[in-house]
Amino acid sequence: MTVISPTITDSTSPTDLRRAFACGTWDEHTVGLAPGYTQANLAILPKEFAYDFLLFCVRNPKPCPLIDVTDPGSPTPTFAAPGSDLRFDLPRYRVYEHGRVVEEPTSIADRWRDDLVAFLLGCSYTFEHALLQGGIRLRHVEQRTNVPMFRTSRPCVSAGQFHGPLVVSMRPIRADQVAQAVQISSRYQRAHGAPVHIGDSEGLGIADLTQPDWGDPLPLAPGEMPVFWACGVTPQAVALAASIPLMITHAPGHMFITDIPIEHLEA
Amino acid sequence: MTVISPTITDSTSPTDLRRAFACGTWDEHTVGLAPGYTQANLAILPKEFAYDFLLFCVRNPKPCPLIDVTDPGSPTPTFAAPGSDLRFDLPRYRVYEHGRVVEEPTSIADRWRDDLVAFLLGCSYTFEHALLQGGIRLRHVEQRTNVPMFRTSRPCVSAGQFHGPLVVSMRPIRADQVAQAVQISSRYQRAHGAPVHIGDSEGLGIADLTQPDWGDPLPLAPGEMPVFWACGVTPQAVALAASIPLMITHAPGHMFITDIPIEHLEA
Repeated sequence: MTVISPTITDSTSPTDLRRAFACGTWDEHTVGLAPGYTQANLAILPKEFAYDFLLFCVRNPKPCPLIDVTDPGSPTPTFAAPGSDLRFDLPRYRVYEHGRVVEEPTSIADRWRDDLVAFLLGCSYTFEHALLQGGIRLRHVEQRTNVPMFRTSRPCVSAGQFHGPLVVSMRPIRADQVAQAVQISSRYQRAHGAPVHIGDSEGLGIADLTQPDWGDPLPLAPGEMPVFWACGVTPQAVALAASIPLMITHAPGHMFITDIPIEHLEA
Repeated sequence: MTVISPTITDSTSPTDLRRAFACGTWDEHTVGLAPGYTQANLAILPKEFAYDFLLFCVRNPKPCPLIDVTDPGSPTPTFAAPGSDLRFDLPRYRVYEHGRVVEEPTSIADRWRDDLVAFLLGCSYTFEHALLQGGIRLRHVEQRTNVPMFRTSRPCVSAGQFHGPLVVSMRPIRADQVAQAVQISSRYQRAHGAPVHIGDSEGLGIADLTQPDWGDPLPLAPGEMPVFWACGVTPQAVALAASIPLMITHAPGHMFITDIPIEHLEA
C-alpha cells in the first residue's frame, strides 16, 4: 500500500476519494489514485450547445470517447458513478467564459444551472495503466512529467460550431514494444484506443517534436519511436475555440474518478 | 457472379445500386446486395428531437450503433457515402406521423425539410455476412425467412422522451459454433457487436420462443442454442412510442447501402 496523504492511499475507493475532494481534504492531481478505476475528462456546457458537442464526440470517437452524459440539470452521471455529484466531486475545476479561464475553483455549486449538461470522456490514464501493467516503459511516468501534446494538421470532423485540429499526446516507445503498445491500447476504445500515428511526426504536421503545445518536452532516446494517441485536450480546445458563454472542465490532471473498473471499458 | 435482376448482380457497386434505387429500377429488399459493404438502418427525425435521439443511441450502443449522422437539412451522409442523397437512394421508405405509418414511398423528396436530421445505424446484415464467411450456419438465411425478433424485459437506458425495452433478434446456433459466433460478431461493434444473451430466453422475459413479436418463427433444432443480439428495431420502436410528429425510416429490409467495406467497421 502506498500512502499518498494522511487520509488517502492507493487503495482508497473512488467513493472515498470523491468525498475527500468534496470536503476539500485533497485538491491535487489524480494521477495514480484509485488505480484500476476509470478516470474521466469533464466538460460541462449549456444544453443549447450540447447537441453539437455530442455530435462532435460521436464523429470523433478517438479524441472524444464518450463515457457518460448527464440529463440536463442533473449533476449525477448515473452510468459512471451513480452516487456522485459533479458539482463537488472533483479536486479542482476550470471555469471558462467565452473561451477564457475566469476561475479555478474546488467546487462549482454556485455555477450550477438547470440547463447544464456534463460530458465525461475517457482519459489516457486508463490505457497508460494497462500499458504499464503490460510491461511497456512510459518515460513521462518514470520522470514524473506531463506527457507532451501537439496540435496536428489533421482536422477533426466538425459538428455545428465545433471544429478544429486533432490534438495528440506523444509517448516514446521502444521499437520492440510498439506492437504490444498498439495491441494493449486497442482494447480501450473508450480511453482513446489504438494510436492514430506511429513515427513520421511530420506527417501529422508536427514541425518540432521537442516543442510540445502542451505538457513537457520528452526527447526520444535511441531505439525509441514516437507513438501518437488522440488526446482529450482536443474537445476542450475545440469547445474553447467556439467561444461559448460558459464551459466548465476539470483542471488539468484533476480528473473525475468513476466507479468503472478499467476492465469494464475493454472492447 | 449471381444475376439478381437484368441490371443488378452481386458485384454491382454501392453507387450503382443507389442509382438503381433512385431511378426506381429496383424497389425490393437489399439482402445479399453489395456483399462486403455495410448496410444501415435509417431514421430521420426533426432537429428538435435529434439531441435526445442521439443521446439515446450513445447510451444504448448495442441496439443503436451509430454509423453516421447528417447535418440538419443535409441529405448526404458524408462519412458513410459522400456522393449519396438519402432522399432518393433507398429502395423504399416508411413515413410515420405521430407513431403511425402513413406512407411507404420510394422517394421522400417531397417530405424533406431543412430541419431534418438523418441517423444511419449499423445493421445485422454486416455481422451475418461475417458469420457466414466464418462457416457459421444461419438457418433463417438458408430458409429465406426473416429473423425472429422479440421485445425483452430488459429496459434501454432512456434519454429525454425516448425509452422502452431492448428488442433482440434470435438466431439458433449449433452449440459447437456459439463461441465462434461470439468471437466473430464481437469484431463488429458498429453492427450490434457481441450477443447480449445466450440461452435462457426466460431471463430476457421471452415467454414463448416460438412466438416472435416481429419476423418469422424459427424453432430450435436439437443441439442448437438460442443466441440473442441487440436489434435495430429497438430505436425505431422507441422513437415510434415517443409519437413524434414526423419520422421517416427505411422500409423493413430495404436498407441504405453505404460505401463502407465491412472490414472497415471492425473494432
